[in-house]
Amino acid sequence: MKKQEQVNTGKLKIIPLGGLGQIGMNITAFEYDDSIIVVDCGLSFPEDDMLGIDLVIPDITYLKDNIDKVKGFFITHGHEDHIGAIPYVLREINVPIYATKLTIGIIEHKLEEHDLLNKVKRKVVKYGQHINLGCFRVEFIKTNHSIQDAAALAIYSPAGIVVHTGDFKVDYTPVFGDAIDLARFGEIGKKGVLALLCDSTNAERPGFTMSEKTVGKTLENIFAEHSNSRIIVATFASNVDRVQQIINCADKYGRKVAIEGRSMVNIISIASELGYLSLPDNILIETDNLRNYPDEKTVIITTGSQGETMAALSRMASGAHRKVSIKPGDTIVFSSSPIPGNEKSVTGIINELMQRGADVISQDVHVSGHACREDIKLIYSLVNPKYSVPVHGEYKHLVAQAKIAEELGWDKDHIKILSAGDILAIDENGADVIGQAPVGNIMVDGLGVGDVGNIVIRDRQKLAEDGIIIVVMTLESGSGQVLAGPDIVSRGFVYVRNSESLMDEAQSVLNSTMEYCMDHNITDWGKIKNEIKDSLGDFVWKETKRRPMIMPIIMEV
Amino acid sequence: MKKQEQVNTGKLKIIPLGGLGQIGMNITAFEYDDSIIVVDCGLSFPEDDMLGIDLVIPDITYLKDNIDKVKGFFITHGHEDHIGAIPYVLREINVPIYATKLTIGIIEHKLEEHDLLNKVKRKVVKYGQHINLGCFRVEFIKTNHSIQDAAALAIYSPAGIVVHTGDFKVDYTPVFGDAIDLARFGEIGKKGVLALLCDSTNAERPGFTMSEKTVGKTLENIFAEHSNSRIIVATFASNVDRVQQIINCADKYGRKVAIEGRSMVNIISIASELGYLSLPDNILIETDNLRNYPDEKTVIITTGSQGETMAALSRMASGAHRKVSIKPGDTIVFSSSPIPGNEKSVTGIINELMQRGADVISQDVHVSGHACREDIKLIYSLVNPKYSVPVHGEYKHLVAQAKIAEELGWDKDHIKILSAGDILAIDENGADVIGQAPVGNIMVDGLGVGDVGNIVIRDRQKLAEDGIIIVVMTLESGSGQVLAGPDIVSRGFVYVRNSESLMDEAQSVLNSTMEYCMDHNITDWGKIKNEIKDSLGDFVWKETKRRPMIMPIIMEV
Repeated sequence: MKKQEQVNTGKLKIIPLGGLGQIGMNITAFEYDDSIIVVDCGLSFPEDDMLGIDLVIPDITYLKDNIDKVKGFFITHGHEDHIGAIPYVLREINVPIYATKLTIGIIEHKLEEHDLLNKVKRKVVKYGQHINLGCFRVEFIKTNHSIQDAAALAIYSPAGIVVHTGDFKVDYTPVFGDAIDLARFGEIGKKGVLALLCDSTNAERPGFTMSEKTVGKTLENIFAEHSNSRIIVATFASNVDRVQQIINCADKYGRKVAIEGRSMVNIISIASELGYLSLPDNILIETDNLRNYPDEKTVIITTGSQGETMAALSRMASGAHRKVSIKPGDTIVFSSSPIPGNEKSVTGIINELMQRGADVISQDVHVSGHACREDIKLIYSLVNPKYSVPVHGEYKHLVAQAKIAEELGWDKDHIKILSAGDILAIDENGADVIGQAPVGNIMVDGLGVGDVGNIVIRDRQKLAEDGIIIVVMTLESGSGQVLAGPDIVSRGFVYVRNSESLMDEAQSVLNSTMEYCMDHNITDWGKIKNEIKDSLGDFVWKETKRRPMIMPIIMEV
Repeated sequence: MKKQEQVNTGKLKIIPLGGLGQIGMNITAFEYDDSIIVVDCGLSFPEDDMLGIDLVIPDITYLKDNIDKVKGFFITHGHEDHIGAIPYVLREINVPIYATKLTIGIIEHKLEEHDLLNKVKRKVVKYGQHINLGCFRVEFIKTNHSIQDAAALAIYSPAGIVVHTGDFKVDYTPVFGDAIDLARFGEIGKKGVLALLCDSTNAERPGFTMSEKTVGKTLENIFAEHSNSRIIVATFASNVDRVQQIINCADKYGRKVAIEGRSMVNIISIASELGYLSLPDNILIETDNLRNYPDEKTVIITTGSQGETMAALSRMASGAHRKVSIKPGDTIVFSSSPIPGNEKSVTGIINELMQRGADVISQDVHVSGHACREDIKLIYSLVNPKYSVPVHGEYKHLVAQAKIAEELGWDKDHIKILSAGDILAIDENGADVIGQAPVGNIMVDGLGVGDVGNIVIRDRQKLAEDGIIIVVMTLESGSGQVLAGPDIVSRGFVYVRNSESLMDEAQSVLNSTMEYCMDHNITDWGKIKNEIKDSLGDFVWKETKRRPMIMPIIMEV
């Protein structure tokens, strides 16, 4: 294939199966003739109304329906919203995974946990390397992000070149490795790019995203100013550069470092094994050994910067951590900013930590991993695509990027805001949505994948709101006479011991309903149940303005 | 009483029954000898884990235990977190309420809804007026806030003067009425103030809070720039000055105004009746009549700026509003900022509105109603209290104000960070917490006040997380033989039709358990139920990693 000289024989299909109009669950299929490649395979975290759900993965019916075409997965970086669905998806579509070294390292750890390490093929790719799969060729391009080894992809198809940025920022002075390969973006741009799929996460934010190194300076100041206290830093486990900078500060000020939180321990072990983290000799100690050093000679790096209930920091804040007790004088640094939706839990933890006397620093010890408006303009200028397809973000973020493209002079017709499931057929002559692939949220709850759907969720919502009233009775087979009951049991409705008269009245209502059924020869169980639901429901609403689930159960002897 | 010349005969007790270490539920008792006065009587909104709860009110056991001493309630302004518990509390402690005109107007509307208007005495107080109650004298001082008619209180007690700011900001150019009476704060300060209870909400924010009038300018620009489209502005119902400024813009640009949302309609009617809102002739129209005017000649002012599910804007966004359909070209302005915890729902609505083609403006069309750091310093400088008692805020906000006081030179000993329930005994010679009053969250769910407690909430949480499995059976009286069942019914656990084999296996486990019980002569119902809970719970956990509530019900014939 010779790039732009190629005679186009058809259209390229771009099919996002998630990640558009939402944060997370990034997965996009690229299809040409008999070849499909997939970029990323992420999960999303449950919405507030998805009660009891652990995580959400994409519906991959489209891939399963075209399983013979699917050649492989290309993963841009090792964050959960780009790799988290791999153990579920690759179980059904077993093709090779291509990614950079650290990304593969993180994926392997995940596969191991799911007992899939021997079943899934992985291939480590270097920046600049090209992978041929079916009628596609894919090149990995160096970018920067809040995790190392992030890549943009140049996807060479017979219909033209597509550049997919993945999540990225422009960092001229990264902590580890090289800056984003802007020159290569420019070089490919000069070849002629059909479409740019660019990260929209920060498209609403003006200006440029600051370098990760600026956080290092802030951390140094904090270490300098708090030389008499223990320092605890909470950050994202996967931000190895951040961890490196904390460790560098600790080293400079002669402090030992303990690591808390399972995911933090895992990532640090993967990153240092693969050479992405450099640890001064003997700087790491076990948390148990903290007691052997004076407070001002120790640092704890921990998970929980998002206020996650089960994370190490949260347990420290509530006094439930087995090894670390927060005490007056401790300096606690949130090197993070709350992900939307987590603001309240983060604040809750900060309050708890302060109540234990700690000094909490939670502002301005973080930079984003995503490109802001001016950075996005830079990428557009370098890549100069025919079509703009904003990706990664809620609808408002996609719109914000679309407005940037318009400002830069792109025609509205050449900016395509897609929804998950849209099949965009694209070539030099046009880009149109020509159909819909099935998409949706597959909810994972414990070991169950997809066995909790909307009906179960609606029941959980109803149960959560007002609880349940169960009515049981035993009827005589044939005669339909009541042999036992009807009895009322409730959970999550009222505290029964304090509401005896209410429950007594409910029992009377129930008895009257059964008398009514007997008197009117209502023997059909469905009808009896409906009578009970109606009469008891009305009574309860009148008395309490609540609508618990009412569940009559009839047994027969 | 002659203020500072007064010989102190004892200590003043300051007893916050809520509002400290939390946002909302502001209520503070001031006790001296046989007199208690109460400042504010607010509600708070339920925390995320208080499933199904509508609102939360304070525990007023302390007031009920001292009911003969309680002389009256002084209300600083008409926001829910300062007045919302009145209908519940005044039912039990029927003493007069003192407040400014608009505040009383809003309270009366609330009392009317609860059928209490004839039972509760109200007294409208003017700024500068003094109220004598028991051994207290209370003066109302003009302040500014995001609702009109806000007051600070100077509480003259035999132990000294306490200044309580209420929620306040410093607005030199308010939209309606006068600026905060800083001179009076200074005058009282010069008399000698024992303690300052100052609003901490914005104590973390640097600088000064901007004038409400600056929002007017922003709104004018928006109206000027969007002269060809319908404009919909969402804001807080109670911010009458904001509504006034929107109406002024509408008037200037020749637009008619429709009001949407019950609370907005209520407040506008109270405020205009009492003279706090000036409505140009014929500017208001019914929403139904919007169709008689071109889009660019209309404005809709609506509730729902916090993304509340049932509010008018939310219904417009989801297409469920009966009278207003959002269409491409509409300009929608959020004249608000999300209250912590509401960020995600606000963003959700913005996305929905944009997907309908609307242009959404959600940044910088709002100013806070609370004093920032420099404003707080100003009040300290004017009042110059002996003791600082930060109020209104989470723990971190109280700490932030305490730090301001320290910066200004107050001794740590003279800064008292209290928790709800602390009884602070204070006079010129000292200030110490000498005991604890009972405090807590009384949860209101529908008509029930306090009938949902921790047990019910825990049940709701469990039901929400993994649903319920109900096991029913009928045993023969005497023999204990199983006559019917055991049957399994579940809700919110799995979608049963897709999980037949799981439910079949669960049935087998259950049957084996019952056989085991029969074989081992286990006839005690409690023991049988425990066997079922254990065996079924273990089975379900092993198969699904879920822990539904398991509820065995035994009937006897």
